Amino acid sequence: MAAAFPHVLLGPGDDCAAVRPPGGAMLLTVDQVIERRHFVPGTPLDLVARKAVARSISDLAAMGATPWCALATGALPAGFPQADADALCVSIKKWAENWNCPLVGGDLASLPEPTSPLMLTVTAIGVAHASGHVATRGGAKPGDHVYVTGALGGSLDRATGMGRHLTFEPRVREAAWLLDTFGTRVHAMIDLSDGLGRDASRIAEASRVRLELDAEAIPRHGGVDDWRAAAGDGEDYELLVCIDPACAVPALIQSTGTRLTRVGSVAPGAGCVVQDGADVHDVRAVGWDHNGRP
Amino acid sequence: MAAAFPHVLLGPGDDCAAVRPPGGAMLLTVDQVIERRHFVPGTPLDLVARKAVARSISDLAAMGATPWCALATGALPAGFPQADADALCVSIKKWAENWNCPLVGGDLASLPEPTSPLMLTVTAIGVAHASGHVATRGGAKPGDHVYVTGALGGSLDRATGMGRHLTFEPRVREAAWLLDTFGTRVHAMIDLSDGLGRDASRIAEASRVRLELDAEAIPRHGGVDDWRAAAGDGEDYELLVCIDPACAVPALIQSTGTRLTRVGSVAPGAGCVVQDGADVHDVRAVGWDHNGRP
Repeated sequence: MAAAFPHVLLGPGDDCAAVRPPGGAMLLTVDQVIERRHFVPGTPLDLVARKAVARSISDLAAMGATPWCALATGALPAGFPQADADALCVSIKKWAENWNCPLVGGDLASLPEPTSPLMLTVTAIGVAHASGHVATRGGAKPGDHVYVTGALGGSLDRATGMGRHLTFEPRVREAAWLLDTFGTRVHAMIDLSDGLGRDASRIAEASRVRLELDAEAIPRHGGVDDWRAAAGDGEDYELLVCIDPACAVPALIQSTGTRLTRVGSVAPGAGCVVQDGADVHDVRAVGWDHNGRP
Repeated sequence: MAAAFPHVLLGPGDDCAAVRPPGGAMLLTVDQVIERRHFVPGTPLDLVARKAVARSISDLAAMGATPWCALATGALPAGFPQADADALCVSIKKWAENWNCPLVGGDLASLPEPTSPLMLTVTAIGVAHASGHVATRGGAKPGDHVYVTGALGGSLDRATGMGRHLTFEPRVREAAWLLDTFGTRVHAMIDLSDGLGRDASRIAEASRVRLELDAEAIPRHGGVDDWRAAAGDGEDYELLVCIDPACAVPALIQSTGTRLTRVGSVAPGAGCVVQDGADVHDVRAVGWDHNGRP
């Protein structure tokens, strides 16, 4: 641990881990992955671990941060095989290190019943971009151009429960490239974990602006029929970015091979709409509710 | 938030929180609290929140750290009332601030079934003692004197599920006093969350020494009949400390009113024993297994 990650002073095994703090601001996030909510029973444990880690890493990316270290918990159904518990720990550690975010601590506990859902949480800590700029949800300005990385839709195969929601690549390098290139002119950023409609609306609300998206412009994965299917998919984990209109944003980030597509503009007002020909649709509720709540 | 805790640059509500890093090493820990494992159904939610926060704060204390900030998750059974969810969040925030550990982020999710157990996790981040000394489990040396804070036993009323395991005070100030007073001569420290036998054995293992405890010396709460009941109780959250024998350790920390009791010594060898008259008992397995595993 010490060799690969010199800022980790003391790894797992004591009451706490110890790490050397970064020079700049620290970014902190925690997220949960719950069986029968975020993955179906029978999902390979390595992909469950991957998703748990990647979700939190994606939150770091959404602020333009660089991963620094992570902690994880696992709550295991009663009777969960020890070999599976061990494999899960190995996978969490492996994926955390894959994104340069060494696992420094954690806790495993047993749930009361065999039918209790397997649950993981990952706390991820990152370091702010070297410029000091932190890309929040609250900085979008009327006139900004709105971009997404990659393409949207079809992250979940509803027949099998598998799909890209288990294998997405958190956009850490793309976020770093955006801040490297445009600095504080990256006014607002979020990762799409609940769907374009819901997440764009979060930027609108935090920034007290209106996001106007163009149905035709929304980049779709192959097999995704229309803008509604793309905007309503929950777990793309692509970045939605509001950038000063004076910036010359290319269609491709060369270093990562990632497309950047302009999908709309920021306007005065509130809410988020998609313009489809002559029709304007309020999409504040278009997305995925992990909690199954209205 | 900013006024009370100036190191919190950005609190809950965005993809991540942002905090200014401390000057010294950061201590990090995460712990879980699970219904029907760590508390019984019907436990007041404020006490559930309190226990979740206090357990992680106690881990910071066990390293001699000062609380800095925290993140929490709640996994709520399907149909959990919104008002209860709101009250739980208020309680977590309140207790975190009570121990000067502002809640900077978190995540609430809904569990798939109404019968799924309520679960909380708290990630706590602390700052190392101003001296730079971090009291790990691994520094005990043969000849050290072994102390506990407070008294042990009876933390759980088995009839009601209530008791001190829900209302204990994490020994943050006591740990700070120990490091203020004895510095690096505090060789090893742990909080008693799984019982004196199990936790003392963790110091023995990490330090590659043997802990020899004196049955008569183990301080017991009123109503706790004998050393076995005291050593076998899981959740005292008192500190077990190994200190250089040259230190003049008082029987009371005046500033906090907390007793310090010498319960034994560190010897060469391995394991942990309690000497009761002529009998020597191996107590490595004496304690509380939250996982209900052998």
